[in-house]
Amino acid sequence: MDTVRIIEVKQSVFADNDKRAAQLREELKEKGIFLLNLMSAPGSGKTTTLTRTVELLKDEMKIGVMEADIDSDVDARTMAAAGVKSIQLHTGGMCHLDADMTRQGLDELIDNDVELAVLENVGNLVCPAEFDTGAVKNAAILSVPEGDDKPLKYPLMFQVCDVVLINKIDVAPYFDFDLERCTEYIRMRNPDAKVIPICAKTGEGVEEWACWLRQQVRDWQRGE
Amino acid sequence: MDTVRIIEVKQSVFADNDKRAAQLREELKEKGIFLLNLMSAPGSGKTTTLTRTVELLKDEMKIGVMEADIDSDVDARTMAAAGVKSIQLHTGGMCHLDADMTRQGLDELIDNDVELAVLENVGNLVCPAEFDTGAVKNAAILSVPEGDDKPLKYPLMFQVCDVVLINKIDVAPYFDFDLERCTEYIRMRNPDAKVIPICAKTGEGVEEWACWLRQQVRDWQRGE
Repeated sequence: MDTVRIIEVKQSVFADNDKRAAQLREELKEKGIFLLNLMSAPGSGKTTTLTRTVELLKDEMKIGVMEADIDSDVDARTMAAAGVKSIQLHTGGMCHLDADMTRQGLDELIDNDVELAVLENVGNLVCPAEFDTGAVKNAAILSVPEGDDKPLKYPLMFQVCDVVLINKIDVAPYFDFDLERCTEYIRMRNPDAKVIPICAKTGEGVEEWACWLRQQVRDWQRGE
Repeated sequence: MDTVRIIEVKQSVFADNDKRAAQLREELKEKGIFLLNLMSAPGSGKTTTLTRTVELLKDEMKIGVMEADIDSDVDARTMAAAGVKSIQLHTGGMCHLDADMTRQGLDELIDNDVELAVLENVGNLVCPAEFDTGAVKNAAILSVPEGDDKPLKYPLMFQVCDVVLINKIDVAPYFDFDLERCTEYIRMRNPDAKVIPICAKTGEGVEEWACWLRQQVRDWQRGE
């Protein structure tokens, strides 16, 4: 396994994050790189979902992953073991990533000719939703044990997401989780959000998610 | 059920939060009020744990609860139904509470002669750990489905906590969660932290937690 590269990202000094995010997205379009921002609460299964996704897509496109974490590099090691270029971004205690912090990680991935770059954001349903990272699409994972009421409590996260993966669907019988009600709450925040139930551990539903992502990457590369 | 009182708390204009938190704690000591700050990721079971705790302690001491949330008042309604004075604090998008925001809620509880005031903080393992709320003790809940590696990834939360409740212990057979390893990780961050496995849904372990809390309240009231 390669040694994992760790970058200590610094908070941007630029007040206008939205403008810088739009600028980053423009550059990514020119280069044909699709950036996905993957968000969730701690322990919802971001890394496991990513590992499964990489398994399905890595023979078709070059993938690079940025693992944002306050401390530790366990996730970046996991992703490197999955066979993709993996960078650990240390936020130095920061609870989110902004466009400039994301760019610091992307610079390294771009050198590796990636087509699909994934930012695994800090595990947090609040702050990451407030900052445009420059991603082409935002995805959130909500896992069954967290409860179906989370879209009511963390409205912005579900508002900014293009797709919501409902993970750990295999343990639904052990929790009081109503998928229909949850989908309804998500749609209250965002009528266009795609909702895909998955189980990253067993692989259930991951093919549908990979198809969606594949389509997004190809549309972006064709300039659609 | 009483109408739930909702307070829109404003972020403090005071830079020196630590000083204001210490001052609040001093005032609470004079009044014999114990303030507990309860933190966790979204969906770890803070409200269910609180409901169980209230059941065990409400005949012995007057309890008041502040439910901090970005939006919604579902938790405050749940707590009011459990038979305690309950206030909803709306943070207006803020990801944490500081001492001054906590004081805005406490003012109302103090009028109700509470002995034990509980602040259910915003569901977030990052930001709430950075702000002293003025609480006498900090408690964190980590639930089994989140994974046993969370103390490695969110070090500050486990460092500032006096007690960690490992919730949803009933579903441990369905998840790859090693309680011994998790306890070891917690102790790496905080050798003095008390770790109590519980299941708020079934009540398992909640008696031990209530005993610990009862002791803390009584010690505080005796000026120990």
